[in-house]
Formats: sequence, C-alpha cells, structure tokens
Amino acid sequence: MYGHLRNLTVVEGASFIAAPSCGLYLAQLGARVIRFDQIGGGPDFGRWPKDAGGGSLYWEGLNKGKQSVAIDLRKPEGRELAVRLATAPGDGAGIFLTNYPPEGFLSHASLAARRPDQITVRVMGWADGSSALDYTINAAVGLPDMTGHPDDPRPVNHVLPAWDLLTGSMAALSLLASERRRRETGAGEEVRVPLSDVAISTLGNLGQIAEVTLSGQDRPRVGNDLFGAFGRDFITADGSRIMIVAITARQWSGLVSCLSLGAEVAALEAQAGVSFAHDEGLRFEHREALNGLVGAAVGARTLADLAPAFEKDGVCWAPYRTLRQAVAEDRRLVSGNPLFSSLDHPSGRRYPAPGFAATMSGEARAPAAPAPALGADTEEVLADLLGCDGAEIAALHDRGVVASAGKGRA
Amino acid sequence: MYGHLRNLTVVEGASFIAAPSCGLYLAQLGARVIRFDQIGGGPDFGRWPKDAGGGSLYWEGLNKGKQSVAIDLRKPEGRELAVRLATAPGDGAGIFLTNYPPEGFLSHASLAARRPDQITVRVMGWADGSSALDYTINAAVGLPDMTGHPDDPRPVNHVLPAWDLLTGSMAALSLLASERRRRETGAGEEVRVPLSDVAISTLGNLGQIAEVTLSGQDRPRVGNDLFGAFGRDFITADGSRIMIVAITARQWSGLVSCLSLGAEVAALEAQAGVSFAHDEGLRFEHREALNGLVGAAVGARTLADLAPAFEKDGVCWAPYRTLRQAVAEDRRLVSGNPLFSSLDHPSGRRYPAPGFAATMSGEARAPAAPAPALGADTEEVLADLLGCDGAEIAALHDRGVVASAGKGRA
Repeated sequence: MYGHLRNLTVVEGASFIAAPSCGLYLAQLGARVIRFDQIGGGPDFGRWPKDAGGGSLYWEGLNKGKQSVAIDLRKPEGRELAVRLATAPGDGAGIFLTNYPPEGFLSHASLAARRPDQITVRVMGWADGSSALDYTINAAVGLPDMTGHPDDPRPVNHVLPAWDLLTGSMAALSLLASERRRRETGAGEEVRVPLSDVAISTLGNLGQIAEVTLSGQDRPRVGNDLFGAFGRDFITADGSRIMIVAITARQWSGLVSCLSLGAEVAALEAQAGVSFAHDEGLRFEHREALNGLVGAAVGARTLADLAPAFEKDGVCWAPYRTLRQAVAEDRRLVSGNPLFSSLDHPSGRRYPAPGFAATMSGEARAPAAPAPALGADTEEVLADLLGCDGAEIAALHDRGVVASAGKGRA
Repeated sequence: MYGHLRNLTVVEGASFIAAPSCGLYLAQLGARVIRFDQIGGGPDFGRWPKDAGGGSLYWEGLNKGKQSVAIDLRKPEGRELAVRLATAPGDGAGIFLTNYPPEGFLSHASLAARRPDQITVRVMGWADGSSALDYTINAAVGLPDMTGHPDDPRPVNHVLPAWDLLTGSMAALSLLASERRRRETGAGEEVRVPLSDVAISTLGNLGQIAEVTLSGQDRPRVGNDLFGAFGRDFITADGSRIMIVAITARQWSGLVSCLSLGAEVAALEAQAGVSFAHDEGLRFEHREALNGLVGAAVGARTLADLAPAFEKDGVCWAPYRTLRQAVAEDRRLVSGNPLFSSLDHPSGRRYPAPGFAATMSGEARAPAAPAPALGADTEEVLADLLGCDGAEIAALHDRGVVASAGKGRA
C-alpha cells in the first residue's frame, strides 16, 4: 500500500476480474475504494479457487484493501443508495468503477444527472454491449489458434486471463487520466473499456494486425519457439526443462560463449552467409539448426552445472516450474519479496498477499491489507461519505436495504 | 488520440514491449512522448514481424504518436544529451520512462541530481536487477505448466507476451499516480516495475498463491476447460469450433434453455443432489457430464443454426478464429471499429492502426498517429524542450552526436 492517491474516493460496483483488479490497484496506491456488494455476495463471491472452508481465495485476492457496503440491490431503495454512493459528494469522489451494463440504473447519464462532473469507468465485454468474457474474446481474436505445439492442431486456451488483467490496468490508467483532466477542466465523462478493444488494439500495437493485413496470411504456429528471435525450451542432462531466450546481441553472445558454441555457430554462419550477432530475426529463421546446437550443448550438462555458468555469462534463462515449486524454491517471488505480507483474510486463513506490483521510492511500502467482510464498512461509509445520521442508517437496516458484517462474512 | 494528458512530457529511452507500450498509452492519451533512439535504431528497431521491405511492423506499432530524437549513445556527449532530455525543464516534464539498468548513466540518482523532482519509471526483469524477459518469467512462475491439453505433458509457452503488456500498463498507471503526487507535494521519485513482481503479484491477486500455499498442491492442468466454472470448446455439426462460457446464473440458464437441456440437466442435478443454477463451481466439478450434454447438443446443430439462437438466449460464446479471419470477418474488431484509422507508416505501408483502447466520452477521438522516422524530431525537440539554438544543434550534428530523419527512416 502506498499513499499516492490518498485524496481519491472510488466507488466500485463490479464483479469478476477486470473491474475489481482496477479497484485493487487504486486501493494499493492509496485511494479509498468502496465496493457495494449485494447482501450475501455478488455473482463472483464464491468463485474458485476456494479454501477448504468455502471462502473464495479469488474474491479476497481481488478485493484487498477495499471497503464494503452491503446493499440489497434488488430493492429500489437499495439501487437508489448505490446511485448515491457512485455520485458521492466531495472533490476526489464522484468516481464510479463498474461492469454493470451501460444502460439501466447505473448508466452514466443517470449518474451525471446527479453529479455533472461524474466520472464513470465501465468495463465491458464487446464494445457494442454484447456479452463477452476473456475466454470468448481470446477465441474470437485468434490467440488459441496460435498457441500450442505445431504437432497438435487443437487450439489452446490460455489459463491466464490476460485480457481481463490488461483491461483492469488500462481501466485504472484511464481513470487517473480522466480524473487529471477533471482537476484541470472540471469536466467528468464516461470511460468505456471493452475487453474486445483492449485485445484487438493490443494485437495492433504488436504489429500483428499489420502482419496479417499486409501478408494475407496467418502466422504459423511456432510452439514453444519465440517468434522472430532465438528462444525455446531445452532439457538438461538431468532432465530439467529450461527456457532460454536471446533477443539482444549480448544475450546471444553470452549464450554462444557459455555453451562453447563459437566454432559451430561460425560454421553455420559461413555456410548460410549470415551473421546472427546483431539480427535476432536470422536466429529465428535458422532456429532448427541453432536449436539443435543449443539443445545438444544443454543436454550434455546438468542444471547445477549450467545455472552458475549462465549467470556468469549473462544468459537470459529460467527453469520451468510449477507454481508451487516457484513459491517454495525462489525466495525472490514470495517468501523473500517485500511485496508480500502474511495476513489474516476473511476466509479465516492466513497466507501471504501481495501489495502493488511497482515499487515507489518516494514513500515506504505499507503492508498489504486484507479484503473486507461483506458489509464491514456499511455504517462508516453511509455516515461519512453520504452524511447519513444514525436514525437513517438504522431505518435502512430495519427495511433490509443494507446489512453490516457480523463476525467473519456477512 | 485523446488530449487528456496534453500538458505532460515524457521522455522514453526504451526498447522491447513493456516500456514502449507504456509510452504508447500515454501518447494516445495526449502526452508528448519523446523517444531517444540510437542513430540507426536500438536493439528492437528491426524486430519481427516485418513487412516485405524490412520495416518492423512491431516497432512502428509500439511507437505510434511519439517523437524521435536520434542520438549516438556510445558517445559521452550523446549520453549527456540523453540525460538532459530525461531531466528536461518544465512543469509537466522531468519524467523519464526506461528499461535501462538501474545503475549507470541513467540511474535515478544521477537524474535527480539534475532535477530534484525527477520522476523515473523503470521497467525491469527481475526485481533484483537480474536479466529476465516475459518468456523466462512465465516459465519461472509456472504458467506454461498449467497451459495446454492434459493428455500432453509438455508445457506450453504463451504467444501473447502478457507480462510485458501488463507491466507496460501498470507502468503507465504508476507514472500517472506518481505525477499526481508530484503535483500535490512537489516530490519526484523512482518507480520500479519489474516483470517478476507484476507476474507474481497477479497470481496472488487471483488467489493462486493462496491456493498452492494452503493446499500444498498445484492445480491440475484442465486444458481448454475454464477452471472453476462451466466453459470450454465444442464442435458444431458442421465442424466449427466454438468457445462457450457460463459463469453467471443468467448465462447458465440461457445455455440450458437454448440447447433444450433442461430435462437432462435436472436429471443430473437430482442424481448428484446439487443445483447448478447458482454455483459455477459445481458446474466445474460436474464438467465431464455437463460437457457431454452440451457437446452432444452443439454437435447436433450447425453454426448457422446455433449463432442466432445463442444471441437470443444471452449465451456467452464466440467462434474460434485465426487472426486473419477475425480481421476479415468481424467488423466490430477492425474494419468497422472507430479505434482504427488507416495510416501511412514509416515502413512505407498503409494499414489500419488502433488508437487508445478505452473510449472517453469527454473528448472526440482523434485518428491514430504513425510512429516517427528515427530522428524525425531531433531539431524540434532540442530547440523547444532544451532551448538549444541553431548553432548548438548544427554543432551536435557536425560531431555526429545527433542525426535527423531524411526521407523515410534515418
């Protein structure tokens, strides 16, 4: 947790990955992020992975450091309360982050009618409002077709919800850009961040739209080879699988020297009339021969022998691991990483949780904060953000419009 | 292009994907983003994909809308000029975006010695300064092990550089948060955004660190099934592969109803003593049976028959496509998408290029701008950002410290 955004208040009415991860990053940077949650939990409150007691490790991972107001959103009065939160008064408030549909009771027009400088950041599936999730967008733009081994024609879905994650961080970036503009001009706006546009613009930014447009051809599947450079997985003499990449001249010369392949590579260069040193594309074109040389050299040595030699020669490499191995074996990732703090979570379990991914030198990093129990902050938020008095809050409780957290989960 | 960041000047000394994509997003939001490039191009200037004439579609995709100053960075005078650009005077300047190593001539300490409120945003591999790329980090945190079909034990590298992309957008978010703080407090800082920390914190945010820590077990590979919910690929009667997902109650009931599976699903629920309607996790646990039912129903109908029925019933689905098919067949992605403009690029080719992924209602979207030729802006930037006069600029040219673009590429 940092304090950079400490005078910013963002209200989040959102589920799944993209929008909650946006709110998470803002909370980690010091914004006050207030979720409103359906009493008993929204559609992702029980999402896997879960712990043995049924608590969603997913939900509590994505909602760390936020506050929670539990509302019955099926009641008109509950919906009115959600609108009041989204459009809360105050300089740094009136910012609503959501994946609710563009029309309906949380439309930007209806929020801006309450607060003219309202900022609404809306994560969407398709830009036209059609339903989509990371996994359908990914199939629709062709990534699974490019992924996997060339000897198996089946498409491979990614397991990392990359479009959700990228959409979440682009939403946070857009929110800060919009709030910066509001501070300068006084004007709010709606910001729409569709998964479909994040995905297709990314493929454009990487040159892949140009590639298929100009060539009229799809890029062939290259398996674990790195397209356009030298890189793939190799097996050591003792059966460890490692990823080796050489995209810069230094990485390439370090690899050739470390594996004592200078003569073989020079012979290949002479035969083909090329020089690999400063052209990663040529290394890709000649990958069959180069993979053979590197594969034989790696296969002749053990990991214990190779690892220090690679480090000494500046080779860019890593072992393949499972996540459990990664957490257990590499102190840089979790156990020795200042990003992580061991926390008690709403599930009742204690485990290490990360703070913000970037390290800011201007402020000390405070430990990560756990997710709230549902409704943990109902009273406090209604009182200090909306100015409700005790009688009003009690009446909302009595009518079942809001709920508070008891011990543990609401 | 939007104008939200119009009074912000960011100097970029960076290559590959993460840091240049950060600069790209800022440029698309209206910041003035000035790259300094080695005369003749840096290590990624010729990176694949390339067009038939050798222009890097990758480089020109990631550097759209930026300015370019070409410098000989091997000369001490060239390095001094890079430092002057990074620490340029002015309210919205003194912001440097880089993937150069933390120590050396572009260290934050040396920049802050010139400009005390300097902001330096540094993309890194491992947080400890060790060399890493997206593909080595991905292997090191276990994603390839989780990816691919369970009947094939080989790990599958992703082809989307997801960690690079997420790091780039997190860097942009961090930069705006830091600049917001500087506007409030006057203080600069260094922001470090390591690929390793972006990756491992993301797996923490998704609950996966908790999952392996608490269970002591790696999640088994589930192939194209969506972990924890209903979703996978199915084949229609006419051989089309489609992705179907149901994570919400509405998506599930729409699918069951659309495929007329109510009776079969009810029988399965009765037999197992469960209800799938409001528990996506149960749909995952019983996926073998449910996949069989849905697979048979999908396999009995053609895509032309299913597509309108799915739309009518709110089923979340998409066809699997290649990227070329996606661009050609779905007008929502490129040809009919207001994000894209057809531009002449430095390669000399004309093709559609995307603007910013989010749509901001407060300003009209201006067309995307092409990448600069190397050195296209050398004179302009030296004059107006650093206040160099004509004689000084001419002398820098004469000594080979800077270069300007001729026609086309420098």
